[in-house]
Amino acid sequence: MRYLPGENRRLHGAPTTLADYEARHVLFEVADGIATLTLNRPDRKNPLTFDSYAELRDLFLALAYAEDVHAVVIHGAGDNFCSGGDVHEIIGPLTKLDMPSLLAFTRMTGDVVKAMRACPQPIIAAVDGVCAGAGAILALASDMRLATARSKTAFLFTRVGLAGCDMGACALLPRVIGQGRASELLYTGRSFTGDEGERWGFFNRLCEPDVLRDDALRLAKDLVAGPTFAHGMTKRMLQQEWNMGVSEAIEAEAQAQAICMATNDFHRAYHAFVGKQRPVFEGD
Amino acid sequence: MRYLPGENRRLHGAPTTLADYEARHVLFEVADGIATLTLNRPDRKNPLTFDSYAELRDLFLALAYAEDVHAVVIHGAGDNFCSGGDVHEIIGPLTKLDMPSLLAFTRMTGDVVKAMRACPQPIIAAVDGVCAGAGAILALASDMRLATARSKTAFLFTRVGLAGCDMGACALLPRVIGQGRASELLYTGRSFTGDEGERWGFFNRLCEPDVLRDDALRLAKDLVAGPTFAHGMTKRMLQQEWNMGVSEAIEAEAQAQAICMATNDFHRAYHAFVGKQRPVFEGD
Amino acid sequence: MRYLPGENRRLHGAPTTLADYEARHVLFEVADGIATLTLNRPDRKNPLTFDSYAELRDLFLALAYAEDVHAVVIHGAGDNFCSGGDVHEIIGPLTKLDMPSLLAFTRMTGDVVKAMRACPQPIIAAVDGVCAGAGAILALASDMRLATARSKTAFLFTRVGLAGCDMGACALLPRVIGQGRASELLYTGRSFTGDEGERWGFFNRLCEPDVLRDDALRLAKDLVAGPTFAHGMTKRMLQQEWNMGVSEAIEAEAQAQAICMATNDFHRAYHAFVGKQRPVFEGD
Repeated sequence: MRYLPGENRRLHGAPTTLADYEARHVLFEVADGIATLTLNRPDRKNPLTFDSYAELRDLFLALAYAEDVHAVVIHGAGDNFCSGGDVHEIIGPLTKLDMPSLLAFTRMTGDVVKAMRACPQPIIAAVDGVCAGAGAILALASDMRLATARSKTAFLFTRVGLAGCDMGACALLPRVIGQGRASELLYTGRSFTGDEGERWGFFNRLCEPDVLRDDALRLAKDLVAGPTFAHGMTKRMLQQEWNMGVSEAIEAEAQAQAICMATNDFHRAYHAFVGKQRPVFEGD
Repeated sequence: MRYLPGENRRLHGAPTTLADYEARHVLFEVADGIATLTLNRPDRKNPLTFDSYAELRDLFLALAYAEDVHAVVIHGAGDNFCSGGDVHEIIGPLTKLDMPSLLAFTRMTGDVVKAMRACPQPIIAAVDGVCAGAGAILALASDMRLATARSKTAFLFTRVGLAGCDMGACALLPRVIGQGRASELLYTGRSFTGDEGERWGFFNRLCEPDVLRDDALRLAKDLVAGPTFAHGMTKRMLQQEWNMGVSEAIEAEAQAQAICMATNDFHRAYHAFVGKQRPVFEGD
Repeated sequence: MRYLPGENRRLHGAPTTLADYEARHVLFEVADGIATLTLNRPDRKNPLTFDSYAELRDLFLALAYAEDVHAVVIHGAGDNFCSGGDVHEIIGPLTKLDMPSLLAFTRMTGDVVKAMRACPQPIIAAVDGVCAGAGAILALASDMRLATARSKTAFLFTRVGLAGCDMGACALLPRVIGQGRASELLYTGRSFTGDEGERWGFFNRLCEPDVLRDDALRLAKDLVAGPTFAHGMTKRMLQQEWNMGVSEAIEAEAQAQAICMATNDFHRAYHAFVGKQRPVFEGD
């Protein structure tokens, strides 16, 4: 799908590929169409800093134009996913900011989620150990979530004197696990286990700790082998129809699916079925 | 409830009853206020064709004006519900269409769901065996779903190179089973068992295969014995409030329920209670 | 948080505290920042009357301005929560009203839910025994719900000839337990057990009958010990973002959380963490 000429791409500063993207505050690698994003300060359970928030935002924004990435896996180094905003590097400085600066910060963190929901690649979170605060939001903002039974996830903003409405939690969490369960988690900040999360639909599946990352990569690999242009349309429409009426959503899907029926991947699937073969999708 | 004079009804081509409706591509029968719709090509697991899509659309549109139908049961002949759009009769021809024709097709299939959500009768899907693609959508677009443990339901659009956004799936499925589970099903196209579906709230209840249809008919019979005008209002408001704010929804319900309080069925219920009898509702 | 001078408060008729509020048709007491509201006609399973509806509406409206209440527990006297609108005191008179009066009634009952969702205090319902009709709505309109295994909850409007769209049920219930389960409950009026309710996410937790009220009070106490201004913002945003798009919700949360970052409670939490102490929140 090539609508932007190369000149315009450069003009907009949009890279065509991310394989050589040099991340500074997280680990980022691209292989076989899968970007793996590793929160990488395992000694402190992978907290976020101003710099890593900004880098995550920029990375997910860049993914919107990346032609070499068709699925994303996000996980934490060591045995934890992410402990959220660092007390010393984030919360301390925030207590000294004026209102415009506070809003600049909350908008930046919100922009991470906006970019995660806007990029066309499905994002898979692999959650082990601690998954707290902004870390829990990164999992929530992903498209699918695998976890270990021992994982502990908490939307603990209330514990630092803040509201549960952080980075979209009051919109996203109720749609994933229901309004009642979401209310309890956001008011109390309590953690939940992997078992609870699976039962509630927060986690799609539990995995053993030693295969969690491999399972996430296998799921990503399956997605990359699928019709990736269509996957991007699925993701876009899940977002787009969020607050449409049912009839408007059906019309929106009629248009979106008609576009997908004009792709080569749809034709490839048909010919493969007729030939009793497995379709080989190419994403166009 | 008679607001349209007979002349206008004929003018609009709207039948007053559907008992004599002659379906050509599905089986359709009306008895005791219940319409039973049977997808009927059991040798091929009841696939849909251009003709049966169009007939389903017209049938559900006609139900909006039918005075002799107060609940609908939809199921498949034999041991399967529906295998979705036929590969040879639907997918093949689609690969040869131009864009306006593709959109005409996706709008027609979307219109089936619009008509299912717009008719006042509660629709009960009885799901056994294969329930795939557009078949899974027919189940999803129903009001309630009974199934067997052995049923296999899959939103498998991705397997034919398409997006998950088909006939309203990205709007409807997340509201039934949650955004996380819906995302997995729509991205991967994987099937789920009756047990999973019941656990997630997709199926209201599991039944043994040999009593599935009877159980669905019994539920329909209970609904038909209820205040059917009020049931139609329940269905309309579930649709109408889909994307309203909470306060607007509460005002909308104040109006809708005031209308129901002006019906005879409400009075019948009161007098039955006072007389310590079971109310006999008549739907007006 | 004092934006209204005392004069204006009196001008608006808004009390500054509710400790001395004299309820006539329900029991209402305030202690340690927790308001306990007891539906109190245990001999008839605590039905609602015109008077108690109006009093509930006024009480929840008054809570919007109450400075001495930071959480609400609502429960029923004896072994039942609430049997809903009284057949003799509500349903009988309703059958004699003209349309403007019917609408005035449904708007008044809807206003109870509007006021419950608009007041800043989290509301905890403690549900034992019968929880039916408008009683089930009071539980549904609460923020969190504890229950006993033996509780029986039913949205039984259909049983009295009415629609399921009462006091916001068609909007609220699908978001709590999913569209499919909500549809069944609203069309059939069937009751569900505590176990079912917990499994579906209607109840946050089951408790033994003899400790139900204590457990609800303990949860309320934990909330009152938290950052209550922030809790009020969590509640407001759960309501506010109900039908926003995801991007708009994220911007709304950026603004709301920036406000919370300017509160003293956020600073108190930071300093407590740095001092390795437990934060003491004061709600400003």
